[in-house]
Amino acid sequence: MKAVVMNGYGGVDVLGIGEVDDVSPGSGEVLVRIRAAALNRADLLQRRGMYQPPKGASEVLGLEMAGEIVELGEGVTGLSVGQRIAALLPGGGYATHAVIPAGMAMPLPDSVDVIEGAAIPEAFLTAYLNLFLLGGMAHGKTVLIHAGASGVGTSAIQLVREAGGVSIVTAGSRDKIERCIKLGAMSGWNYHDGSFAPFVAENTSNQGVDIILDFIGEPYFEDNLVSLAVDGRLIIIGTMGGVNVNSLNLGTMLGRRLQIIGTALRSQTVERKIEITRRFWEFAEEGVREGRIRPVIDSVYDWREVADAHRHMEENRNVGKIVLQITD
Amino acid sequence: MKAVVMNGYGGVDVLGIGEVDDVSPGSGEVLVRIRAAALNRADLLQRRGMYQPPKGASEVLGLEMAGEIVELGEGVTGLSVGQRIAALLPGGGYATHAVIPAGMAMPLPDSVDVIEGAAIPEAFLTAYLNLFLLGGMAHGKTVLIHAGASGVGTSAIQLVREAGGVSIVTAGSRDKIERCIKLGAMSGWNYHDGSFAPFVAENTSNQGVDIILDFIGEPYFEDNLVSLAVDGRLIIIGTMGGVNVNSLNLGTMLGRRLQIIGTALRSQTVERKIEITRRFWEFAEEGVREGRIRPVIDSVYDWREVADAHRHMEENRNVGKIVLQITD
Repeated sequence: MKAVVMNGYGGVDVLGIGEVDDVSPGSGEVLVRIRAAALNRADLLQRRGMYQPPKGASEVLGLEMAGEIVELGEGVTGLSVGQRIAALLPGGGYATHAVIPAGMAMPLPDSVDVIEGAAIPEAFLTAYLNLFLLGGMAHGKTVLIHAGASGVGTSAIQLVREAGGVSIVTAGSRDKIERCIKLGAMSGWNYHDGSFAPFVAENTSNQGVDIILDFIGEPYFEDNLVSLAVDGRLIIIGTMGGVNVNSLNLGTMLGRRLQIIGTALRSQTVERKIEITRRFWEFAEEGVREGRIRPVIDSVYDWREVADAHRHMEENRNVGKIVLQITD
Repeated sequence: MKAVVMNGYGGVDVLGIGEVDDVSPGSGEVLVRIRAAALNRADLLQRRGMYQPPKGASEVLGLEMAGEIVELGEGVTGLSVGQRIAALLPGGGYATHAVIPAGMAMPLPDSVDVIEGAAIPEAFLTAYLNLFLLGGMAHGKTVLIHAGASGVGTSAIQLVREAGGVSIVTAGSRDKIERCIKLGAMSGWNYHDGSFAPFVAENTSNQGVDIILDFIGEPYFEDNLVSLAVDGRLIIIGTMGGVNVNSLNLGTMLGRRLQIIGTALRSQTVERKIEITRRFWEFAEEGVREGRIRPVIDSVYDWREVADAHRHMEENRNVGKIVLQITD
């Protein structure tokens, strides 16, 4: 089958289309003809040789895709050949075919095309895991979402709104903040204007927020703790600004019963990913079908332009997901 | 009514028996004739003026008690006059009477006397909240319990055993460790022999533990993080050794998906305390009735000897709970 292959590790020029071994579904698995695959920052790291796929996973880039089922493995029920699905992958999305455990498949409603479908899994499952399964998201809760215009950020804003909560965001421009507000955020803070802590205090009557989704790590750590309400949870998804915190007051943590939670979707077991997928889809399927929950698409590239797509992400110019169409 | 009153703040000599205002049950509350009250470290702090009771709570010491119901407030169902119960209190346990919300009452089985009953609430509800509601305790999980011979420690060991988990402990003497093992701990480490991290590694095939209950804070922080398994949770109940952590690697937290959880029972809302009590009692009532779950009693004092009881706790000589009999 065809796939994006790499000529060594490095810049975008190592990417090209080539041939890799065919895949076939084992027991409990399905074979998918991929029609679209979305980009993730982890793909850029993997291209540069800074990330090794987990043992047993494809060496091909690509952590999520959408397409149609072309073959059912032994014992698979509830899915059928020809059905359009989206799913998370441990790797191998930049290809014409992939094999997934049947439990990972989210059947796409007719109202959602494969471009949108491919943009759902990583961002929405990450947002769902962190907000709901780790953050205790529920009706009436308040959430601070850093990088609000990112894939995970825009997904989180929509899921908070769907659950009946309130979100506020940080982002790097007035334009990005406005997009977040259109998606359902109550207000936003441009981080170029200084610390977000006073903004959070002002927007929560000095109570702080119940949940923070953070991608920045060390530079935001102190202000994040200050911005949490009693029983608040700081969910750390990324550490783009640094990892070494040199001041944590445990007395503050006890006094306000705070939680600091380190998390990652990719390193979860397959069983856990299936469970996260199932619970997310139970929560979100209706909203997706009715158009209330939609991935934000930044741009769509033919997969032969995969180098341009990577460059676009590397330049931090995207708001929302970058999707490759697998046109072969 | 009679109660232990304080002549100012300070050493044990400020304690004596005196008169305070009578209490009477409002709607949804019950009046209890207290027969026994257990000591807590917070009582010592409060005696020294280092802890102010929450707004609306009694100024009298005492966070837990057992006795019999003598009057039902309006609208109370499911409880009856004469019934023996134990309950958590926001204060006021060192007295002949107290008023509690009906939902806080744990009806004592015939097999449990009021001395044991009074020793249940703080230690067991703290252990239950932290292990189960915050720690995700379940069958097969491994737990490191610091201060294993303390009230919370001995309670936690029994609840872990009841849930089908495995606990290992730290304590300050061979004798204390042996008592922990008798209660159900798999093994123990004498903290006078150095870092517990190699002991945890050895006892978990280098996997680390799923849950840590910690009372020490800063001095144990680094070794605690090292000792957690993937998805492990460090539950910080106390900071007896210090609060200022000057090194936390967020990358480690993401890599192993670790959680750091600050917690306290006393500062919870009444509604939450009622919920914790209800869930604990659903889990533990049968075990308490059948004698598998029992508070460890260190010593019993007549409440006229309350000064001696406080001195005994201050000298750190107790293994398990110190209980006052309210003999008036």
